[in-house]
This record gives sequence, C-alpha cells and structure tokens, in this order.
Amino acid sequence: MKYLDVRLPEFANEFQQVLSRGKMDMKEVSSLVQELLDEIRTEGLDALKKHIARFDKWEVKSFEDLRISPKECLNAYNQLSSELKSALHLAYDRIYAFHRKQKMQSWIDCEENGNILGSKFTPMERAGLYIPGGKAAYPSSLLMNAIPAIVAGVKEIVVCSPTPHNQANPLVLAALHLCGITEVYKVGGASAIGLMAYGCKEIPKVDVITGPGNIFVACAKKLVFGEVNIDMVAGPSEIAIIADSQANPLYIAYDLLSQAEHDEMASSILISDSAPLIESVQKHIEQILPSMPRAEIAGASIKNRAVMIYTRNLQESIEIANAIAPEHLEVLTTTPFDTLPYIKHAGAIFLGEHSSEPIGDYLAGPNHTLPTGGSARFFSPLGVEHFMKKSSIIAFSATALEEVGESCALLAQSESLSAHAQAVLTRLDSIKSKRE
Amino acid sequence: MKYLDVRLPEFANEFQQVLSRGKMDMKEVSSLVQELLDEIRTEGLDALKKHIARFDKWEVKSFEDLRISPKECLNAYNQLSSELKSALHLAYDRIYAFHRKQKMQSWIDCEENGNILGSKFTPMERAGLYIPGGKAAYPSSLLMNAIPAIVAGVKEIVVCSPTPHNQANPLVLAALHLCGITEVYKVGGASAIGLMAYGCKEIPKVDVITGPGNIFVACAKKLVFGEVNIDMVAGPSEIAIIADSQANPLYIAYDLLSQAEHDEMASSILISDSAPLIESVQKHIEQILPSMPRAEIAGASIKNRAVMIYTRNLQESIEIANAIAPEHLEVLTTTPFDTLPYIKHAGAIFLGEHSSEPIGDYLAGPNHTLPTGGSARFFSPLGVEHFMKKSSIIAFSATALEEVGESCALLAQSESLSAHAQAVLTRLDSIKSKRE
Repeated sequence: MKYLDVRLPEFANEFQQVLSRGKMDMKEVSSLVQELLDEIRTEGLDALKKHIARFDKWEVKSFEDLRISPKECLNAYNQLSSELKSALHLAYDRIYAFHRKQKMQSWIDCEENGNILGSKFTPMERAGLYIPGGKAAYPSSLLMNAIPAIVAGVKEIVVCSPTPHNQANPLVLAALHLCGITEVYKVGGASAIGLMAYGCKEIPKVDVITGPGNIFVACAKKLVFGEVNIDMVAGPSEIAIIADSQANPLYIAYDLLSQAEHDEMASSILISDSAPLIESVQKHIEQILPSMPRAEIAGASIKNRAVMIYTRNLQESIEIANAIAPEHLEVLTTTPFDTLPYIKHAGAIFLGEHSSEPIGDYLAGPNHTLPTGGSARFFSPLGVEHFMKKSSIIAFSATALEEVGESCALLAQSESLSAHAQAVLTRLDSIKSKRE
Repeated sequence: MKYLDVRLPEFANEFQQVLSRGKMDMKEVSSLVQELLDEIRTEGLDALKKHIARFDKWEVKSFEDLRISPKECLNAYNQLSSELKSALHLAYDRIYAFHRKQKMQSWIDCEENGNILGSKFTPMERAGLYIPGGKAAYPSSLLMNAIPAIVAGVKEIVVCSPTPHNQANPLVLAALHLCGITEVYKVGGASAIGLMAYGCKEIPKVDVITGPGNIFVACAKKLVFGEVNIDMVAGPSEIAIIADSQANPLYIAYDLLSQAEHDEMASSILISDSAPLIESVQKHIEQILPSMPRAEIAGASIKNRAVMIYTRNLQESIEIANAIAPEHLEVLTTTPFDTLPYIKHAGAIFLGEHSSEPIGDYLAGPNHTLPTGGSARFFSPLGVEHFMKKSSIIAFSATALEEVGESCALLAQSESLSAHAQAVLTRLDSIKSKRE
C-alpha cells in the first residue's frame, strides 16, 4: 500500500505512477494475436479446432461441438435456487429500466423553407458479446453486455465464451437463458474475436463486438476495429474513493477490497484530506484481508497497487480524482452531490455512503462495463448507443436550394471541385426554368 | 463503368466486388506507420523535424516554426472575397445549427425509494483535428470537424495539417479564423497523429482525434486508438444512388461525377430498376467527363470503380443499397420519403432530387465526415457525441439498499466475490442498527 502526501516534494513523481497505472503494452502480444486472427480468417473451423485444443484443452470435431444449446441454458436456469433466480431477475429488470432511458430516438427538424433535416437511428443487425470464461466467468457481465443490445433492438446477438476442458459455467448459461440468447459458442480469447469479426463458412460476421477480457482479447478487439466496431479498449479494474473525515472507514475498506479481489492488477485508491481516516481504513484493510476467500489475489493487489493519497482539502481531492480519471469513483463526503459539478472524468460516479460500488456491479442499473486506466477522459460506459448507429437525413426543397445553392457552388469552386458546383447549378437552372 | 444485372447468374460474384470496395489493407503500411509513431513518442520535436524534411520538404528549426499564428489566419480571412466570406459564414451557421440539436444533456431519474440514477455528459478537454493538406486541403473539412467540437464545449481544439514546402492553404487558414481556432501546427500524416496522441515536451496530448486522411493517417489513428479516442477508420469516398424511371439522369450524372472527381479510388454506384434511365445516365457521364477540370481523376474513378446495377424493382434497389451500406445514399424516386423506413445502412441519406450530395458536403448542416466502405453498418457520422463522454451517476438511498442489498450480496457470492458481498452487507447491518 503506497502512501502519497501532496505536501511532499516527491509527490509529483509518485503520482505519475498512479497516472500510468494499467497501461497495457500490447506490442508484446500483438504479433501472436494477429497470427491467431489471421488463422481464423483464412482457415475458419480448422483454426478454431487448433486454438481450442491448445488453449482450452478439449477436442472440437465439428462446428456443432462449439454450440451451447438453448436447452442446456434452460436446464442451468432451472437448477438455480429461487433466491438466485429472483436476484438475477431483479438485476435484469433494473439494468433494463436504466438502459431503456438511454435509447436514442430518430428526429427530424422542419425548416420554414421546406427543408427536412434529421438523424435516423437504427440498431446494428448482428452483435457479438465476449464473456470471459474460467475463473472470471461472471453472469453479471452477460447481463451488462446483452441488455443494451436487447434495448437497442439488435436482432442477432451472438455470445462467445471460452470453456476450458469443455466445462461451461452454469451461472452464465442460466443468464443466457434469462436474456433469451440462443446463439452461443464455446470459443475464447483472440480466436473468439476473430470468429465474430470475420465470420466463417458456418456463420456471418457481426457488426460490433463488446465485452471484457484479458490483454489478448483487448488486443484482438483493437486489431479488428474498423472491420467491426468495438466498445472500448479496457484494462484492469480500478476504484478511487474521495472521502472526508466523516466517512465510514469500514465501508471504504470493503469497497477498496472489492476492487482488489478482482485481479492482482486491480488498483484501489483512497483520496482524503483526513489523515486519521486514511489510517483507520488501512487498519480495517489489514484486519479484513487475511480472512477473505480471495486473500491471495486481494493481498497482492493491495500490496502492489493500492494507493492512499493525503490531500489538503476536498477541492484538491476532486482535482486529483479528475487527473486519475478512474473507472469507478466513490464520493463519501458529508454532501456528496455538491461535488458532482466538479467531477469531470470517471466511468461511474457513486455518490454517498449507501452507493457501494458492488451495487453498481450487479443491479443499480447503469452498466458495469466502464473505461479504465484513465480512458474515462474520452470513453463512456457501455450503453445502448454502442449497439445503434445513425444516418443523417437531408431532404432539400427547391426553395431552400434557391436560397443556398449559389453559395454552395462557390464553396465547391473554391475547393476546385467543379462537378460538385455543377450538380447544384444544373438544378438551380431547372428550378428557374420551371418557375418561369 | 461496370454494368451489373441482378437477373444474371454472375451477379452474385460481381456484387461481391462491390461489397469489398474500399477495403484498405493496412498491413502494408502499418510497420512504417508504427515506426513513425514511435519516433514521435520518443524523440518529439527531433522526429518532427526529420519527418517534415522527408515528407513535406521544408526545414523546421524550432517548435515555433510549426505554428500557424492567429494573425496569419486573420490575414487569410481578410483576403477572401465578400461572396466567399458570406458563403463560409452561411455554411458555419447551418452546420452549427444542426449540430446544436445533437448535443446530449445530462439527465437524472429519481426513484420513489430515494434513489437517483443518471448520466452526466461532459466535453472532452482537448481535441485534435486532422485536416489534410496539399491538393486535398478543404476548408469544409475544417468546419465539419471543428463545429461539433465547438458545440460540445471542448476548451482546447488543436489542428494539425501538413504544409508541403511550407505553403499553407489560405482557405483553410481563413476557416481557422472563422472557427476561432488558435492552436495550429504544420504537421501531417502519421507524425501529426502521433504528436496529438502522445503530446511532446512542448504541448500536451489530446483526448480525441478526428478527421479525414489517407491510408497512413487512417492506420495511425487505428494504432493510437485506446491511447486516445478516434472518430472512425475511413477510406475512399463513395456514393450510391437509388433512382426510378422518373429521375433526372443529368442530376444523377453530375452527382456520380462529384464523387468521382474526389479521388481515383472513389466509388460511384447507380441502382435502378429502369434500364433506359441507366443508359441515359451513362451517356450524360460520357458527355460531361472530358470537359471536367479534374477529368483525369474522375475518368479513372468512373472507369475502374463506377457500377450501374439494374434491379427488378424499387424494393430490390433498397435491399442492394442496404447491402452496400454506402457513405452517401441519394434516393431519386417519385416519393422518396416512402423509402426511409426501409433504409438501414447509410452514412447520410439524401431524399429527393433537390438534395444533391454536394449540398451535404458544404452547408446542408449535417456532417460530411461519414463512414465508408460498408462501415455505415456500424459507424455513425461525425457528431457532437464524438467530443463528449459520459459518466454514470449512482446515488443509492438507505431504503433502496435495504430493498435490493440482499439480492446484490447473493449475486456477488455466486461469483465468489466475498468482499463485494460484505461491502453491501456491512451497510445493511448499520442501516438496521440505526433503525432500531
């Protein structure tokens, strides 16, 4: 656990390390990933067989072997306890309700000269969701990726998830049933991204790929960007908490540890102008850590990546949080809403002591797929907009063309594009002769 | 000019070539581009000096040499004819008015249990616009990239544009003055993308890079994606026109030639169920082409990349246009608005015979930076949203946490994330003891 004090001369250098947290150097993996993608693109099923034997350790004989059937998903769903079933339904309903409010509507605007301008929003036709498998197979990731696609109106939703030793995670299967997704393939890593981006003899390519994954998945998504759209390039998870002296240190300790238990590379950052609070949080963490089931992972994360930043005042705490641009930002201050106007960069902002970050992971409603590593400066949470695209609408009237046509032709001539000018001038001539 | 007839058995194969138009194979240039980017990142100004001497053939002595001053831009603006000045102002005002309507508003939603959920939209802090130089230096590109950034509220807008032999295009300078942009660098190609993505000793990095460019620029944008956000990966320009027998063949000929005069790689595609119309358009093109100032470029484009597709009926024409997913789609039919519900994929849709595509290039209002090569299936026109990002807002009340906390903890346990569960359960305990 690092302790940084803004008052000390070494702060600037130490804080640089916080700012460069979670930078992934994809160069080391990108040639391997490109090779895997090329194999999928050129060899299709043969490459899938090879990759799955190599990475997931099971034998694929035919394309059908890769499918998980709706029946299997239904069975998994039926085996859930009724409590877990209703918890999943509650999560689904709350996530759906929030995303429903994001949905963009096509619009037009009528000008008095007879023009109609606007934007038409349409869902993407085929979306590919990547859901990690093995130890990080989370049903919540499926809900968070599938529901925005469902709300957007995507007709074909494909899911790829690796199944090491051909063992699927039953909770993910149950969530697939809940979401009504029927096209599911047991393929992971770069191979899955390649299968979705390029398609193969058996299935068509998708239009967009979303979902979390390790550095191989992130690198593959970046490499196929342009061939398809993607949500973002994301790295290890992270939280920053702004707290004042009144905050509950036990809550903060658990919230920091929630982040740490995800991944040894996860970053947990506390920013506070209260030295006693920081000390108290540290004590709670040390006390809780040993008894956690995932003590090893959380311990490594806390030891190497946790940072306590001691600031002069709340305003400085906010400035530091903005510089960090964290994936998750909790504000545990006496009047948290007062800080909202000053928070510029954060994937999700959790205001007040009852807004524990894990609530956002599962069922608050907003998406838990969020920008990491400071990219909250320019990336947004996954949303319905990632599964839709728009077309501009331009319907010009004769009157409007008469009003602006000469100016348009002049601009075209100034760029030496004479056919552009003539396309407009020819029409102006016809309109004029019709009017006469 | 290719002629495809949907009735012929060879159609499927020939149409495949139309679908794969404008695919850029970046592999050939990507190692050079990566090298240029790495040099900019590690050497800064020294690399810029080297690259500019090599590609733009002028000598840079200091970082200040790279700047274009607001004074130069003002002078260029003052030299414009009053007609061109008011045409540029008209374009600015119409583009501004349209983009103003796109601007997303932060919103919150209050639940009856005391919860507040929402989304906060904020402008990106620093945006980099790439404007091509030399023979394709278009002031309209500057307006179309700058205005959405201005509407979004971006505080720092940086422009990079190459100036071969240190000669800037005066119209671009005038447009820079009009847009009030004061941070302008004479840097082009991959070097410009690197300068904006990584920053250097003299200037900070940006958050987003937008703007058109050749394959080197497109490749560089893709390589820095994740380090910054980008608008899209775009290739050569293209138009598809759906026309019925009533359409004016002269208009169509000029609109196809407008596309062709941009670039030898540009694609002009006519889709019609009227053989006589197609024939008439072809005749007009052959007649107009030789007298065009850019006859060589347009001729090469028409010869190698123009396609006439003869369909059975309007519905089939629309289906074919959807499969093409063109950057620009014109609909010149008797009742063009009737087709709108069926058009799924197009960057911009121009309805009716007065909506000539060049109007959209300059001053209709909607953006002319549009997805190409079929990527209108998943990319959108450049817009205000490319210069903003959002943060989710989650403010949970004690009552709400009591309602859903147990379910949340159960979901966390099902994913073996015990600290997630404890973070919530600890709060439930406190709420309960306070209530007692």
